Amino acid sequence: MTGQAKKHVFDQSIALTPSGDNSWQGQFPPAYANMVGPFGGVIAATLLNGVLNHPERLGDPVSMTVNFAGPIADDHFDVATRPCRTNRSTQHWMIELTQGGETAVTATVLTGVRRDSWEGSDVSMPDDVPPFDEVEPFDVGRSLPWVANYDLRIIDGGFDPSGRTPEQAHGASRLWVRDKPSRPLDFTSLMAISDCFFPRIFIRRQERMPAGTVSLTTYFHADGDTLARQGDLPVLAEARAQRYFKGYFDQSAELWGADGQLLATTHQVVYFKG
Amino acid sequence: MTGQAKKHVFDQSIALTPSGDNSWQGQFPPAYANMVGPFGGVIAATLLNGVLNHPERLGDPVSMTVNFAGPIADDHFDVATRPCRTNRSTQHWMIELTQGGETAVTATVLTGVRRDSWEGSDVSMPDDVPPFDEVEPFDVGRSLPWVANYDLRIIDGGFDPSGRTPEQAHGASRLWVRDKPSRPLDFTSLMAISDCFFPRIFIRRQERMPAGTVSLTTYFHADGDTLARQGDLPVLAEARAQRYFKGYFDQSAELWGADGQLLATTHQVVYFKG
Repeated sequence: MTGQAKKHVFDQSIALTPSGDNSWQGQFPPAYANMVGPFGGVIAATLLNGVLNHPERLGDPVSMTVNFAGPIADDHFDVATRPCRTNRSTQHWMIELTQGGETAVTATVLTGVRRDSWEGSDVSMPDDVPPFDEVEPFDVGRSLPWVANYDLRIIDGGFDPSGRTPEQAHGASRLWVRDKPSRPLDFTSLMAISDCFFPRIFIRRQERMPAGTVSLTTYFHADGDTLARQGDLPVLAEARAQRYFKGYFDQSAELWGADGQLLATTHQVVYFKG
Repeated sequence: MTGQAKKHVFDQSIALTPSGDNSWQGQFPPAYANMVGPFGGVIAATLLNGVLNHPERLGDPVSMTVNFAGPIADDHFDVATRPCRTNRSTQHWMIELTQGGETAVTATVLTGVRRDSWEGSDVSMPDDVPPFDEVEPFDVGRSLPWVANYDLRIIDGGFDPSGRTPEQAHGASRLWVRDKPSRPLDFTSLMAISDCFFPRIFIRRQERMPAGTVSLTTYFHADGDTLARQGDLPVLAEARAQRYFKGYFDQSAELWGADGQLLATTHQVVYFKG
Protein backbone atom coordinates (compact mmCIF):
# COMPACT_ATOMS: atom_id res chain seq x y z
CA MET A 1 0.00 0.00 0.00
CA THR A 2 1.42 3.40 -0.91
CA GLY A 3 1.04 6.55 1.15
CA GLN A 4 -1.62 7.64 -1.31
CA ALA A 5 -3.82 4.56 -0.84
CA LYS A 6 -7.14 5.30 0.85
CA LYS A 7 -7.40 3.84 4.34
CA HIS A 8 -9.95 1.12 4.98
CA VAL A 9 -13.21 2.57 6.31
CA PHE A 10 -12.67 0.64 9.56
CA ASP A 11 -9.28 2.29 10.10
CA GLN A 12 -10.77 5.68 9.32
CA SER A 13 -13.53 5.05 11.86
CA ILE A 14 -11.32 3.98 14.77
CA ALA A 15 -8.70 6.73 14.29
CA LEU A 16 -7.78 8.94 17.24
CA THR A 17 -5.61 12.06 17.40
CA PRO A 18 -3.41 12.53 20.49
CA SER A 19 -4.48 15.57 22.50
CA GLY A 20 -2.18 15.24 25.53
CA ASP A 21 -0.78 12.65 27.92
CA ASN A 22 -3.29 9.77 28.02
CA SER A 23 -5.84 11.75 26.00
CA TRP A 24 -7.17 11.61 22.50
CA GLN A 25 -9.82 13.14 20.27
CA GLY A 26 -11.94 11.50 17.61
CA GLN A 27 -15.16 11.70 15.67
CA PHE A 28 -17.06 8.74 14.25
CA PRO A 29 -17.83 8.90 10.51
CA PRO A 30 -21.37 7.83 9.51
CA ALA A 31 -20.17 4.56 7.92
CA TYR A 32 -20.79 2.47 11.07
CA ALA A 33 -23.98 4.20 12.25
CA ASN A 34 -26.29 2.05 14.38
CA MET A 35 -29.76 2.66 15.83
CA VAL A 36 -28.47 5.34 18.23
CA GLY A 37 -24.94 6.55 17.50
CA PRO A 38 -22.25 4.27 16.07
CA PHE A 39 -21.99 0.46 16.15
CA GLY A 40 -20.72 -0.64 19.58
CA GLY A 41 -18.01 -2.81 18.04
CA VAL A 42 -16.42 0.23 16.42
CA ILE A 43 -16.65 2.21 19.65
CA ALA A 44 -14.87 -0.65 21.48
CA ALA A 45 -12.24 -0.93 18.73
CA THR A 46 -11.59 2.82 18.91
CA LEU A 47 -10.93 2.68 22.65
CA LEU A 48 -8.69 -0.36 22.17
CA ASN A 49 -6.88 1.57 19.43
CA GLY A 50 -6.13 4.31 21.97
CA VAL A 51 -4.48 1.71 24.23
CA LEU A 52 -2.57 0.04 21.39
CA ASN A 53 -1.16 3.41 20.24
CA HIS A 54 -0.26 4.58 23.74
CA PRO A 55 3.53 5.01 24.08
CA GLU A 56 3.58 3.11 27.40
CA ARG A 57 1.56 0.09 26.30
CA LEU A 58 2.96 -3.30 27.36
CA GLY A 59 1.97 -6.49 25.50
CA ASP A 60 -1.13 -7.52 23.59
CA PRO A 61 -4.79 -7.36 24.61
CA VAL A 62 -5.86 -10.23 26.88
CA SER A 63 -9.28 -8.93 27.93
CA MET A 64 -11.46 -5.87 27.38
CA THR A 65 -14.74 -4.78 28.96
CA VAL A 66 -16.71 -1.90 27.44
CA ASN A 67 -19.76 -0.31 29.06
CA PHE A 68 -22.08 1.71 26.86
CA ALA A 69 -23.29 4.36 29.26
CA GLY A 70 -24.94 6.89 26.98
CA PRO A 71 -25.47 7.88 23.35
CA ILE A 72 -22.66 9.41 21.26
CA ALA A 73 -23.70 12.36 19.10
CA ASP A 74 -22.32 12.99 15.62
CA ASP A 75 -19.60 15.30 16.91
CA HIS A 76 -16.04 15.05 18.23
CA PHE A 77 -15.39 13.23 21.49
CA ASP A 78 -12.55 12.86 23.97
CA VAL A 79 -10.94 9.63 25.14
CA ALA A 80 -8.78 9.19 28.25
CA THR A 81 -6.63 6.03 28.32
CA ARG A 82 -4.92 5.66 31.68
CA PRO A 83 -2.43 2.85 32.39
CA CYS A 84 -3.28 2.49 36.08
CA ARG A 85 -1.04 -0.44 36.93
CA THR A 86 1.99 -1.82 35.13
CA ASN A 87 3.47 -5.11 36.34
CA ARG A 88 6.37 -7.09 34.89
CA SER A 89 4.30 -8.66 32.15
CA THR A 90 0.76 -7.25 32.53
CA GLN A 91 -0.82 -3.82 32.40
CA HIS A 92 -4.28 -2.60 33.48
CA TRP A 93 -6.03 0.28 31.74
CA MET A 94 -9.04 2.44 32.63
CA ILE A 95 -10.66 4.23 29.70
CA GLU A 96 -13.39 6.81 29.46
CA LEU A 97 -15.02 8.37 26.41
CA THR A 98 -16.63 11.72 27.11
CA GLN A 99 -18.55 14.10 24.91
CA GLY A 100 -19.47 17.60 26.00
CA GLY A 101 -18.03 16.74 29.41
CA GLU A 102 -20.40 13.81 29.95
CA THR A 103 -19.28 10.16 30.15
CA ALA A 104 -20.65 8.09 27.26
CA VAL A 105 -18.48 4.95 27.47
CA THR A 106 -16.27 3.38 30.13
CA ALA A 107 -13.87 0.51 29.59
CA THR A 108 -11.10 -1.53 31.15
CA VAL A 109 -8.38 -3.37 29.25
CA LEU A 110 -5.78 -5.88 30.36
CA THR A 111 -2.72 -6.20 28.15
CA GLY A 112 -0.06 -8.83 28.70
CA VAL A 113 3.17 -10.11 27.28
CA ARG A 114 2.35 -13.57 25.93
CA ARG A 115 4.73 -16.33 26.97
CA ASP A 116 4.77 -19.95 25.88
CA SER A 117 2.74 -22.26 28.15
CA TRP A 118 0.84 -25.50 28.04
CA GLU A 119 -1.93 -25.08 25.45
CA GLY A 120 -5.26 -26.76 24.99
CA SER A 121 -8.93 -26.31 24.17
CA ASP A 122 -11.98 -27.73 25.92
CA VAL A 123 -14.18 -26.83 22.94
CA SER A 124 -13.72 -27.34 19.23
CA MET A 125 -14.87 -25.54 16.13
CA PRO A 126 -18.13 -26.99 14.78
CA ASP A 127 -17.39 -29.36 11.89
CA ASP A 128 -20.90 -29.37 10.47
CA VAL A 129 -20.92 -25.88 8.98
CA PRO A 130 -20.80 -25.20 5.24
CA PRO A 131 -17.78 -23.19 4.03
CA PHE A 132 -18.05 -19.39 3.75
CA ASP A 133 -18.29 -19.50 -0.07
CA GLU A 134 -21.29 -21.82 0.02
CA VAL A 135 -23.41 -19.64 2.30
CA GLU A 136 -25.58 -16.88 0.82
CA PRO A 137 -24.31 -13.37 1.74
CA PHE A 138 -26.67 -11.56 4.09
CA ASP A 139 -28.78 -9.06 2.18
CA VAL A 140 -28.06 -5.75 3.91
CA GLY A 141 -31.21 -4.34 2.29
CA ARG A 142 -32.84 -2.10 4.86
CA SER A 143 -30.35 -2.94 7.67
CA LEU A 144 -28.65 -0.28 9.74
CA PRO A 145 -25.60 1.32 8.03
CA TRP A 146 -22.90 -0.55 10.05
CA VAL A 147 -24.07 -3.93 8.70
CA ALA A 148 -22.91 -2.98 5.18
CA ASN A 149 -19.29 -3.03 6.42
CA TYR A 150 -19.44 -6.76 7.08
CA ASP A 151 -19.79 -9.72 4.79
CA LEU A 152 -22.14 -11.81 6.93
CA ARG A 153 -23.06 -15.38 5.95
CA ILE A 154 -25.72 -16.63 8.33
CA ILE A 155 -25.66 -20.41 8.63
CA ASP A 156 -28.47 -20.76 11.16
CA GLY A 157 -30.28 -18.66 13.72
CA GLY A 158 -31.22 -15.80 11.40
CA PHE A 159 -33.79 -13.10 12.01
CA ASP A 160 -36.83 -12.84 9.75
CA PRO A 161 -38.16 -9.27 10.01
CA SER A 162 -41.39 -10.21 8.16
CA GLY A 163 -43.05 -11.42 11.36
CA ARG A 164 -43.97 -14.72 9.65
CA THR A 165 -41.40 -16.85 11.50
CA PRO A 166 -42.65 -18.15 14.86
CA GLU A 167 -40.86 -17.79 18.18
CA GLN A 168 -37.83 -20.13 18.41
CA ALA A 169 -36.78 -22.51 21.20
CA HIS A 170 -33.51 -20.58 21.64
CA GLY A 171 -31.66 -17.51 20.38
CA ALA A 172 -28.52 -19.25 19.06
CA SER A 173 -26.87 -18.39 15.72
CA ARG A 174 -23.87 -19.43 13.66
CA LEU A 175 -22.44 -17.23 10.94
CA TRP A 176 -19.32 -16.43 8.96
CA VAL A 177 -18.17 -12.84 9.21
CA ARG A 178 -15.49 -10.79 7.49
CA ASP A 179 -14.83 -7.08 7.08
CA LYS A 180 -16.16 -5.67 3.79
CA PRO A 181 -13.99 -4.81 1.92
CA SER A 182 -11.83 -7.54 3.41
CA ARG A 183 -9.02 -6.43 5.73
CA PRO A 184 -6.39 -8.47 7.61
CA LEU A 185 -7.70 -9.28 11.09
CA ASP A 186 -6.05 -7.46 13.98
CA PHE A 187 -6.96 -6.93 17.65
CA THR A 188 -9.14 -3.90 16.87
CA SER A 189 -11.18 -5.61 14.16
CA LEU A 190 -11.50 -8.79 16.24
CA MET A 191 -12.83 -6.62 19.09
CA ALA A 192 -15.34 -5.02 16.73
CA ILE A 193 -16.45 -8.40 15.33
CA SER A 194 -17.13 -9.58 18.88
CA ASP A 195 -20.13 -7.21 18.80
CA CYS A 196 -21.39 -8.21 15.32
CA PHE A 197 -24.37 -10.23 16.51
CA PHE A 198 -28.00 -9.20 16.18
CA PRO A 199 -29.73 -9.09 19.57
CA ARG A 200 -30.48 -12.66 20.68
CA ILE A 201 -34.02 -11.69 21.62
CA PHE A 202 -34.74 -10.92 17.94
CA ILE A 203 -33.70 -14.48 17.07
CA ARG A 204 -35.53 -16.10 19.95
CA ARG A 205 -38.79 -14.19 19.50
CA GLN A 206 -38.46 -13.39 15.77
CA GLU A 207 -39.61 -9.91 16.61
CA ARG A 208 -37.83 -6.56 16.55
CA MET A 209 -37.89 -4.41 19.69
CA PRO A 210 -35.72 -1.71 21.30
CA ALA A 211 -32.48 -3.42 22.39
CA GLY A 212 -28.86 -2.42 22.91
CA THR A 213 -25.66 -3.81 24.41
CA VAL A 214 -24.87 -2.22 27.75
CA SER A 215 -21.70 -4.14 28.68
CA LEU A 216 -19.40 -6.20 26.47
CA THR A 217 -16.41 -8.33 27.54
CA THR A 218 -14.00 -10.04 25.14
CA TYR A 219 -11.21 -12.44 26.02
CA PHE A 220 -8.49 -12.76 23.39
CA HIS A 221 -6.96 -16.18 22.73
CA ALA A 222 -4.72 -14.94 19.93
CA ASP A 223 -1.37 -13.26 19.56
CA GLY A 224 0.22 -11.49 16.61
CA ASP A 225 1.26 -14.78 14.98
CA THR A 226 -2.28 -16.16 15.24
CA LEU A 227 -3.69 -13.04 13.59
CA ALA A 228 -1.05 -13.08 10.84
CA ARG A 229 -2.03 -16.67 10.00
CA GLN A 230 -5.70 -15.65 9.87
CA GLY A 231 -5.06 -12.70 7.51
CA ASP A 232 -8.32 -11.62 5.89
CA LEU A 233 -9.99 -15.04 6.00
CA PRO A 234 -13.53 -15.16 7.43
CA VAL A 235 -14.21 -15.81 11.11
CA LEU A 236 -16.80 -18.36 12.24
CA ALA A 237 -18.99 -16.83 14.94
CA GLU A 238 -21.33 -18.72 17.27
CA ALA A 239 -23.58 -16.92 19.74
CA ARG A 240 -26.25 -17.94 22.22
CA ALA A 241 -28.30 -16.37 24.99
CA GLN A 242 -28.74 -17.70 28.49
CA ARG A 243 -31.42 -15.80 30.35
CA TYR A 244 -33.85 -13.00 29.52
CA PHE A 245 -34.97 -11.40 32.76
CA LYS A 246 -36.61 -8.06 33.61
CA GLY A 247 -35.26 -6.01 30.75
CA TYR A 248 -31.85 -7.61 30.21
CA PHE A 249 -30.46 -10.77 28.62
CA ASP A 250 -26.94 -12.12 28.32
CA GLN A 251 -25.12 -13.49 25.29
CA SER A 252 -22.00 -15.65 25.03
CA ALA A 253 -20.12 -16.25 21.79
CA GLU A 254 -17.04 -17.82 20.26
CA LEU A 255 -15.03 -16.47 17.34
CA TRP A 256 -13.15 -19.18 15.44
CA GLY A 257 -10.24 -18.69 13.06
CA ALA A 258 -9.89 -20.34 9.66
CA ASP A 259 -7.56 -23.02 11.00
CA GLY A 260 -9.98 -24.05 13.78
CA GLN A 261 -8.28 -22.02 16.52
CA LEU A 262 -10.50 -20.19 19.00
CA LEU A 263 -9.51 -16.53 18.51
CA ALA A 264 -11.76 -14.96 21.15
CA THR A 265 -14.64 -15.64 23.51
CA THR A 266 -17.03 -12.79 24.13
CA HIS A 267 -19.92 -12.04 26.45
CA GLN A 268 -22.41 -9.25 26.75
CA VAL A 269 -25.48 -8.09 28.61
CA VAL A 270 -28.14 -6.41 26.53
CA TYR A 271 -31.00 -4.13 27.47
CA PHE A 272 -34.33 -4.86 25.79
CA LYS A 273 -37.86 -3.55 25.99
CA GLY A 274 -40.54 -6.05 25.11
CA MET B 1 -30.90 -10.53 65.10
CA THR B 2 -30.18 -8.12 67.96
CA GLY B 3 -27.68 -5.31 67.84
CA GLN B 4 -25.38 -7.46 69.95
CA ALA B 5 -25.28 -10.35 67.49
CA LYS B 6 -21.94 -10.92 65.87
CA LYS B 7 -21.88 -10.12 62.18
CA HIS B 8 -21.30 -12.95 59.69
CA VAL B 9 -17.62 -13.21 58.77
CA PHE B 10 -18.55 -12.36 55.17
CA ASP B 11 -20.20 -9.09 56.24
CA GLN B 12 -17.20 -8.25 58.42
CA SER B 13 -14.90 -8.90 55.47
CA ILE B 14 -16.70 -6.72 52.91
CA ALA B 15 -17.30 -3.78 55.28
CA LEU B 16 -16.20 -0.30 54.21
CA THR B 17 -16.08 2.96 56.16
CA PRO B 18 -16.99 6.17 54.31
CA SER B 19 -13.99 8.52 54.06
CA GLY B 20 -15.42 11.24 51.82
CA ASP B 21 -17.59 11.73 48.73
CA ASN B 22 -17.24 8.54 46.64
CA SER B 23 -14.46 7.24 48.87
CA TRP B 24 -14.13 4.51 51.44
CA GLN B 25 -11.58 2.75 53.58
CA GLY B 26 -11.33 -0.91 54.49
CA GLN B 27 -9.03 -3.68 55.58
CA PHE B 28 -9.49 -7.37 54.82
CA PRO B 29 -9.50 -9.70 57.81
CA PRO B 30 -7.49 -12.93 57.39
CA ALA B 31 -10.62 -15.13 57.17
CA TYR B 32 -10.73 -15.09 53.36
CA ALA B 33 -6.98 -15.21 52.68
CA ASN B 34 -5.99 -16.74 49.34
CA MET B 35 -2.60 -17.59 47.82
CA VAL B 36 -1.62 -13.90 47.52
CA GLY B 37 -3.87 -11.49 49.44
CA PRO B 38 -7.60 -12.14 49.93
CA PHE B 39 -9.98 -14.31 47.86
CA GLY B 40 -10.96 -12.41 44.68
CA GLY B 41 -14.66 -13.01 45.29
CA VAL B 42 -14.51 -11.09 48.57
CA ILE B 43 -12.56 -8.26 46.93
CA ALA B 44 -15.26 -8.04 44.25
CA ALA B 45 -18.04 -8.16 46.85
CA THR B 46 -16.37 -5.38 48.84
CA LEU B 47 -16.26 -3.08 45.81
CA LEU B 48 -19.89 -3.92 45.02
CA ASN B 49 -20.74 -3.16 48.64
CA GLY B 50 -19.29 0.32 48.14
CA VAL B 51 -21.66 0.87 45.22
CA LEU B 52 -24.68 -0.57 47.03
CA ASN B 53 -24.08 1.70 50.04
CA HIS B 54 -23.45 4.80 47.94
CA PRO B 55 -26.16 7.44 48.63
CA GLU B 56 -26.65 8.07 44.87
CA ARG B 57 -27.02 4.44 43.80
CA LEU B 58 -29.85 3.72 41.36
CA GLY B 59 -31.25 0.19 41.01
CA ASP B 60 -29.76 -3.26 41.43
CA PRO B 61 -26.55 -4.72 39.99
CA VAL B 62 -26.91 -5.90 36.38
CA SER B 63 -23.24 -6.48 35.57
CA MET B 64 -19.88 -6.13 37.23
CA THR B 65 -16.33 -6.50 35.91
CA VAL B 66 -13.40 -6.67 38.32
CA ASN B 67 -9.75 -6.56 37.26
CA PHE B 68 -7.16 -7.84 39.73
CA ALA B 69 -4.20 -5.61 38.93
CA GLY B 70 -1.87 -6.21 41.84
CA PRO B 71 -1.57 -7.86 45.25
CA ILE B 72 -3.31 -6.41 48.32
CA ALA B 73 -1.20 -6.34 51.49
CA ASP B 74 -2.59 -7.02 54.96
CA ASP B 75 -3.18 -3.32 55.65
CA HIS B 76 -5.91 -0.73 55.09
CA PHE B 77 -6.86 0.24 51.56
CA ASP B 78 -8.86 2.99 49.85
CA VAL B 79 -11.78 2.54 47.48
CA ALA B 80 -13.15 5.17 45.10
CA THR B 81 -16.68 4.48 43.75
CA ARG B 82 -17.61 7.04 41.11
CA PRO B 83 -21.07 7.13 39.50
CA CYS B 84 -19.90 8.39 36.10
CA ARG B 85 -23.21 8.31 34.27
CA THR B 86 -26.76 8.23 35.59
CA ASN B 87 -29.58 7.70 33.11
CA ARG B 88 -33.29 7.37 33.77
CA SER B 89 -33.09 3.74 34.81
CA THR B 90 -29.39 2.78 34.57
CA GLN B 91 -26.20 3.93 36.21
CA HIS B 92 -22.54 3.28 35.33
CA TRP B 93 -19.80 3.11 37.97
CA MET B 94 -16.00 3.18 37.82
CA ILE B 95 -14.25 1.81 40.88
CA GLU B 96 -10.64 1.70 41.95
CA LEU B 97 -9.02 0.10 44.98
CA THR B 98 -5.68 1.62 45.90
CA GLN B 99 -3.20 0.81 48.61
CA GLY B 100 -0.23 3.02 49.40
CA GLY B 101 -1.26 5.16 46.42
CA GLU B 102 -0.94 2.27 43.96
CA THR B 103 -3.89 0.75 42.06
CA ALA B 104 -4.53 -2.86 43.08
CA VAL B 105 -8.04 -3.44 41.62
CA THR B 106 -10.20 -1.72 39.01
CA ALA B 107 -13.86 -2.42 38.38
CA THR B 108 -16.94 -1.25 36.53
CA VAL B 109 -20.51 -1.83 37.63
CA LEU B 110 -23.83 -1.30 35.87
CA THR B 111 -26.86 -0.93 38.09
CA GLY B 112 -30.38 -0.73 36.72
CA VAL B 113 -33.97 -0.42 37.83
CA ARG B 114 -35.54 -3.77 36.94
CA ARG B 115 -38.82 -3.53 35.03
CA ASP B 116 -41.14 -6.34 34.02
CA SER B 117 -40.44 -7.73 30.54
CA TRP B 118 -40.80 -10.89 28.53
CA GLU B 119 -38.86 -13.59 30.36
CA GLY B 120 -37.25 -16.80 29.22
CA SER B 121 -34.23 -19.07 29.42
CA ASP B 122 -32.28 -20.77 26.64
CA VAL B 123 -30.58 -23.06 29.14
CA SER B 124 -31.94 -25.09 32.02
CA MET B 125 -30.60 -26.30 35.33
CA PRO B 126 -29.10 -29.80 35.02
CA ASP B 127 -31.58 -32.38 36.27
CA ASP B 128 -29.07 -35.17 36.77
CA VAL B 129 -27.33 -33.84 39.86
CA PRO B 130 -27.74 -35.32 43.33
CA PRO B 131 -29.22 -32.99 45.97
CA PHE B 132 -26.88 -30.96 48.19
CA ASP B 133 -27.48 -33.20 51.21
CA GLU B 134 -26.41 -36.30 49.32
CA VAL B 135 -23.03 -34.96 48.22
CA GLU B 136 -20.01 -35.29 50.48
CA PRO B 137 -18.82 -31.91 51.87
CA PHE B 138 -15.47 -30.88 50.44
CA ASP B 139 -12.71 -31.57 52.95
CA VAL B 140 -11.04 -28.20 53.43
CA GLY B 141 -8.04 -30.00 54.94
CA ARG B 142 -4.97 -28.16 53.70
CA SER B 143 -6.90 -25.76 51.43
CA LEU B 144 -6.32 -22.01 51.48
CA PRO B 145 -8.15 -20.19 54.31
CA TRP B 146 -10.99 -18.71 52.17
CA VAL B 147 -12.26 -22.19 51.25
CA ALA B 148 -13.31 -22.84 54.86
CA ASN B 149 -15.98 -20.10 54.51
CA TYR B 150 -17.88 -22.15 51.94
CA ASP B 151 -19.75 -25.41 52.16
CA LEU B 152 -18.66 -26.92 48.84
CA ARG B 153 -20.16 -30.17 47.56
CA ILE B 154 -18.30 -31.18 44.43
CA ILE B 155 -20.47 -33.34 42.18
CA ASP B 156 -17.97 -33.83 39.36
CA GLY B 157 -14.82 -32.18 38.05
CA GLY B 158 -12.87 -32.21 41.30
CA PHE B 159 -9.16 -31.70 41.76
CA ASP B 160 -7.03 -34.48 43.19
CA PRO B 161 -3.87 -32.93 44.65
CA SER B 162 -2.21 -36.35 45.05
CA GLY B 163 -0.97 -36.32 41.46
CA ARG B 164 -2.47 -39.80 40.92
CA THR B 165 -5.38 -38.65 38.72
CA PRO B 166 -4.47 -38.39 35.03
CA GLU B 167 -5.06 -35.35 32.84
CA GLN B 168 -8.75 -34.94 31.98
CA ALA B 169 -10.44 -34.32 28.61
CA HIS B 170 -11.85 -31.01 29.88
CA GLY B 171 -11.81 -28.73 32.92
CA ALA B 172 -15.55 -28.69 33.69
CA SER B 173 -17.01 -28.99 37.21
CA ARG B 174 -20.38 -29.03 38.93
CA LEU B 175 -20.78 -28.28 42.59
CA TRP B 176 -23.18 -27.07 45.23
CA VAL B 177 -21.99 -24.05 47.17
CA ARG B 178 -23.25 -22.15 50.19
CA ASP B 179 -21.73 -19.70 52.66
CA LYS B 180 -20.48 -21.35 55.87
CA PRO B 181 -22.07 -20.57 58.25
CA SER B 182 -25.08 -20.21 55.98
CA ARG B 183 -26.23 -16.68 55.21
CA PRO B 184 -29.15 -15.42 53.08
CA LEU B 185 -27.92 -14.83 49.53
CA ASP B 186 -27.64 -11.19 48.43
CA PHE B 187 -25.92 -9.43 45.54
CA THR B 188 -22.59 -9.22 47.37
CA SER B 189 -22.45 -12.90 48.31
CA LEU B 190 -23.63 -13.94 44.83
CA MET B 191 -20.78 -11.83 43.40
CA ALA B 192 -18.32 -13.56 45.74
CA ILE B 193 -19.64 -17.02 44.85
CA SER B 194 -19.09 -16.26 41.17
CA ASP B 195 -15.36 -16.56 41.93
CA CYS B 196 -15.60 -19.75 44.02
CA PHE B 197 -14.16 -22.10 41.40
CA PHE B 198 -10.74 -23.70 41.54
CA PRO B 199 -8.65 -22.83 38.47
CA ARG B 200 -9.89 -24.87 35.50
CA ILE B 201 -6.34 -25.82 34.57
CA PHE B 202 -6.02 -27.72 37.88
CA ILE B 203 -9.06 -29.80 36.89
CA ARG B 204 -7.99 -30.30 33.29
CA ARG B 205 -4.39 -31.23 34.08
CA GLN B 206 -4.90 -32.54 37.65
CA GLU B 207 -1.83 -30.60 38.58
CA ARG B 208 -1.31 -27.55 40.76
CA MET B 209 0.56 -24.56 39.33
CA PRO B 210 0.68 -20.79 39.85
CA ALA B 211 -2.67 -19.39 38.64
CA GLY B 212 -4.85 -16.39 39.44
CA THR B 213 -7.93 -14.64 38.08
CA VAL B 214 -7.03 -11.40 36.33
CA SER B 215 -10.47 -10.27 35.14
CA LEU B 216 -13.92 -11.41 36.30
CA THR B 217 -17.31 -10.43 34.85
CA THR B 218 -20.66 -11.39 36.37
CA TYR B 219 -24.11 -10.80 34.89
CA PHE B 220 -26.95 -10.83 37.40
CA HIS B 221 -30.26 -12.44 36.41
CA ALA B 222 -31.87 -11.89 39.80
CA ASP B 223 -33.64 -9.13 41.62
CA GLY B 224 -34.45 -8.69 45.29
CA ASP B 225 -37.48 -11.00 45.07
CA THR B 226 -35.39 -13.74 43.47
CA LEU B 227 -32.80 -13.50 46.24
CA ALA B 228 -35.45 -13.48 48.96
CA ARG B 229 -36.90 -16.73 47.53
CA GLN B 230 -33.41 -18.27 47.51
CA GLY B 231 -32.67 -17.35 51.14
CA ASP B 232 -29.76 -19.40 52.42
CA LEU B 233 -30.37 -22.43 50.20
CA PRO B 234 -27.35 -23.77 48.28
CA VAL B 235 -26.48 -22.59 44.77
CA LEU B 236 -25.67 -25.06 42.01
CA ALA B 237 -22.55 -23.92 40.18
CA GLU B 238 -21.32 -25.20 36.81
CA ALA B 239 -18.02 -24.04 35.31
CA ARG B 240 -16.01 -24.90 32.21
CA ALA B 241 -12.95 -23.60 30.39
CA GLN B 242 -12.70 -22.81 26.73
CA ARG B 243 -9.11 -22.18 25.69
CA TYR B 244 -5.73 -22.29 27.42
CA PHE B 245 -3.29 -20.19 25.39
CA LYS B 246 0.09 -18.63 26.14
CA GLY B 247 -0.34 -18.12 29.86
CA TYR B 248 -4.10 -17.44 30.10
CA PHE B 249 -7.32 -19.45 29.98
CA ASP B 250 -10.96 -18.41 30.17
CA GLN B 251 -13.77 -19.83 32.29
CA SER B 252 -17.56 -19.51 31.93
CA ALA B 253 -20.00 -20.55 34.63
CA GLU B 254 -23.64 -20.56 35.65
CA LEU B 255 -25.02 -20.13 39.14
CA TRP B 256 -28.45 -21.74 39.62
CA GLY B 257 -30.93 -21.05 42.38
CA ALA B 258 -32.78 -23.68 44.36
CA ASP B 259 -35.94 -23.27 42.27
CA GLY B 260 -34.08 -23.83 38.97
CA GLN B 261 -33.73 -20.12 38.13
CA LEU B 262 -30.45 -18.96 36.64
CA LEU B 263 -29.23 -16.38 39.20
CA ALA B 264 -26.05 -15.29 37.44
CA THR B 265 -23.70 -16.09 34.59
CA THR B 266 -20.04 -15.36 35.15
CA HIS B 267 -16.87 -15.34 33.11
CA GLN B 268 -13.21 -14.87 33.86
CA VAL B 269 -9.76 -14.93 32.37
CA VAL B 270 -7.06 -16.52 34.47
CA TYR B 271 -3.29 -16.26 34.36
CA PHE B 272 -1.36 -19.51 34.75
CA LYS B 273 2.23 -20.63 34.61
CA GLY B 274 2.80 -24.19 33.49
